[in-house]
Amino acid sequence: MRRRTQVAIIGAGPAGLLLSQLLHVAGIDSIVLERRSQSYVEGRIRAGVLEQGTVELLERAGVADRLHRDGLQHHGIRLALDGELFRIDLHGLTGGRAVTVYGQTEVTHDLIQVHQARGAALVFEASDVALHDLEGKAPFVTYQADGESHHVDCDYVAGCDGYHGVSRPSIPAGILRSFEKVYPFGWLGILADVPPCDDELIYSNHRNGFALASMRSLTRSRYYIQVPLTEKLEDWPDTRIWDELSLRLGPEAAARMTHGPSIEKSIAPLRSFVAEPMRHGRLFLAGDAAHIVPPTGAKGLNLAASDVGLLADALISHYRENSDAALEGYSARALARVWMAERFSWWFTSLTHRFPDMDDFARHMQVAELGYIRASRQAQAVLAENYVGLPLAYSARGSEARQGMPEFANMGEAG
Amino acid sequence: MRRRTQVAIIGAGPAGLLLSQLLHVAGIDSIVLERRSQSYVEGRIRAGVLEQGTVELLERAGVADRLHRDGLQHHGIRLALDGELFRIDLHGLTGGRAVTVYGQTEVTHDLIQVHQARGAALVFEASDVALHDLEGKAPFVTYQADGESHHVDCDYVAGCDGYHGVSRPSIPAGILRSFEKVYPFGWLGILADVPPCDDELIYSNHRNGFALASMRSLTRSRYYIQVPLTEKLEDWPDTRIWDELSLRLGPEAAARMTHGPSIEKSIAPLRSFVAEPMRHGRLFLAGDAAHIVPPTGAKGLNLAASDVGLLADALISHYRENSDAALEGYSARALARVWMAERFSWWFTSLTHRFPDMDDFARHMQVAELGYIRASRQAQAVLAENYVGLPLAYSARGSEARQGMPEFANMGEAG
Repeated sequence: MRRRTQVAIIGAGPAGLLLSQLLHVAGIDSIVLERRSQSYVEGRIRAGVLEQGTVELLERAGVADRLHRDGLQHHGIRLALDGELFRIDLHGLTGGRAVTVYGQTEVTHDLIQVHQARGAALVFEASDVALHDLEGKAPFVTYQADGESHHVDCDYVAGCDGYHGVSRPSIPAGILRSFEKVYPFGWLGILADVPPCDDELIYSNHRNGFALASMRSLTRSRYYIQVPLTEKLEDWPDTRIWDELSLRLGPEAAARMTHGPSIEKSIAPLRSFVAEPMRHGRLFLAGDAAHIVPPTGAKGLNLAASDVGLLADALISHYRENSDAALEGYSARALARVWMAERFSWWFTSLTHRFPDMDDFARHMQVAELGYIRASRQAQAVLAENYVGLPLAYSARGSEARQGMPEFANMGEAG
Repeated sequence: MRRRTQVAIIGAGPAGLLLSQLLHVAGIDSIVLERRSQSYVEGRIRAGVLEQGTVELLERAGVADRLHRDGLQHHGIRLALDGELFRIDLHGLTGGRAVTVYGQTEVTHDLIQVHQARGAALVFEASDVALHDLEGKAPFVTYQADGESHHVDCDYVAGCDGYHGVSRPSIPAGILRSFEKVYPFGWLGILADVPPCDDELIYSNHRNGFALASMRSLTRSRYYIQVPLTEKLEDWPDTRIWDELSLRLGPEAAARMTHGPSIEKSIAPLRSFVAEPMRHGRLFLAGDAAHIVPPTGAKGLNLAASDVGLLADALISHYRENSDAALEGYSARALARVWMAERFSWWFTSLTHRFPDMDDFARHMQVAELGYIRASRQAQAVLAENYVGLPLAYSARGSEARQGMPEFANMGEAG
């Protein structure tokens, strides 16, 4: 089977699906190829905090109705040091911005629904996906599905297939540079159908390690505790997790915490990763295919959305205005924002987690920094502007700064 | 020889001399004992950036005339990444605050002058200083000078004798806790009678390592470059230093840099150090006797001054109002401010220096943070409020936070 489209999108996670939908709204044709099954994709438990910019993109894609009905607007977060809570007024500190709690699972579901309702080209269980002639003017994608070989001719390929996908490795090793930090611990997450212990999220630095009280809805809670990567799930029966959460989140949260059976439980590693450039020939990377952040601060999905927003605009500019400037500038522009989010996620992780090699002085630096944030409205404003998502203007200014600073353009030498 | 005073002050650095003078202005008698000679003390080359709060204390002590005449008010600093400069508007970002460039050498000189003019008890070359009965109601200090043994009865002892002094070790080991970080590099400093290359200080992060363009006056420049601690001074002739400074500070600064023969050259290690508590019985520690900061951000002298300001007020409150509350609260109050300054100095050092174990990702975090600071007024405001000196209100709020957070009061368990 041979067909043609304008943009071949690899991966039906939120990045690929949102891109496809944004292009469709603009009258641009695409096909989405996903290696996994629909039920697998819809079943993945992931993040759940959306920046305002992400919500705006979902509105633009026409998939925000359920989000607006069921999503929870959060105007603040709480931080804790050894169980003592204090609040960061995101709304007041950012001139009225907020975040929306709405599970990535729900975002994906809504996007798949709208694709299937309009009979979009969305192929699940596409195997052996391969990208071809990316450096030429006529790239194409091949894959297997339903026992047949398929060939898709296209103008551009969007690599939205995550860290383990085929897109990034399609960029020659001599061109791709990558940067990585692996953290010496993981997050043990528990999902339970119980009401959250607080209206807002609680990020706790406890001497036993980090804990996070999060939620997916008013009846579904998501909690995490930092654990060594050597821990086994079978050593963490639900009761032990609830006890440790009560300790690390402190008495105020513990008193309002409803325990209940876990409906999902897993240990995930934490990693920072960036691949540069995000464009090679006619291939454009977006989301986890190009970068991973540790989950502290919930930037992963939001960064995928902002990549896709930039890429959609660049493609629209190509097809509508016959201008390739935005496509040419996509990698630099996206990376400027990526590095800002990488910095924030690394910093917020460093501030709140217990590191195995941390000595008394390093611990005191965490405590002093949390005390400073508690005392300084300026420090709170920095946390808040990053948490709700830096305005796009920052990326632009960051991008200018990048061009102005030799090393921004040529970081490879820095090592 | 036996005599009596209200406060025996150990050490005639700026901390001890300023304390003595603040007490004198309030009608409280003291003696200052210094191990070194007057010429040694006056000859020490140290820091030169005074926070507004430090200037105000010097005014209160009546030793600010020459400072006001010769000191240079700085309303901003510059940061650089690989030689590309950008400015932090300290004045605009802090509601009109500034720092004053005036050498510690000059501060010390002015303080000695005023002591000697009023015939104050200021003893140089006092050897074998020992503190006695600090836990009782009648402490005393003994020392040797001019071939005689001396005995000073007093109400209180102020330990202002620096890191290597006798005061801190006079606190029993079981009571004193200390926290330390030694940085894996030093600063090679050069002092030269040439005009500075810029109106303001330049802090540069260069891939070769940190550099700082500072000054003592409009005709005396002070420059530093980060070097490995293994470097030997004899391998750094002046020309090599000027070349490296030109490279690290970048073309804009290099074009305006006047080279000249060094009148002082030295390599100093960088360290963070805090001892807790800062009070034991009737002994009160202030300045370097209790804490060291790396010089990045110029907090050392200013922290000594704020300690001394708090201690002077507490002693005045004791003698005038018969209240010991401020003396009892001195250690907690001073330490709250100390940890804030330690955090800032550690952060500013971490942001601007090249660490031997730094990988590409860590380097990118520095670059991203400098890019973020360049782009975000909020991030600039955080740097600025710390650089000009956190308002005393922060210490108070920090101190409350400290009391509210169990670990602040009992950090020993954290390790």
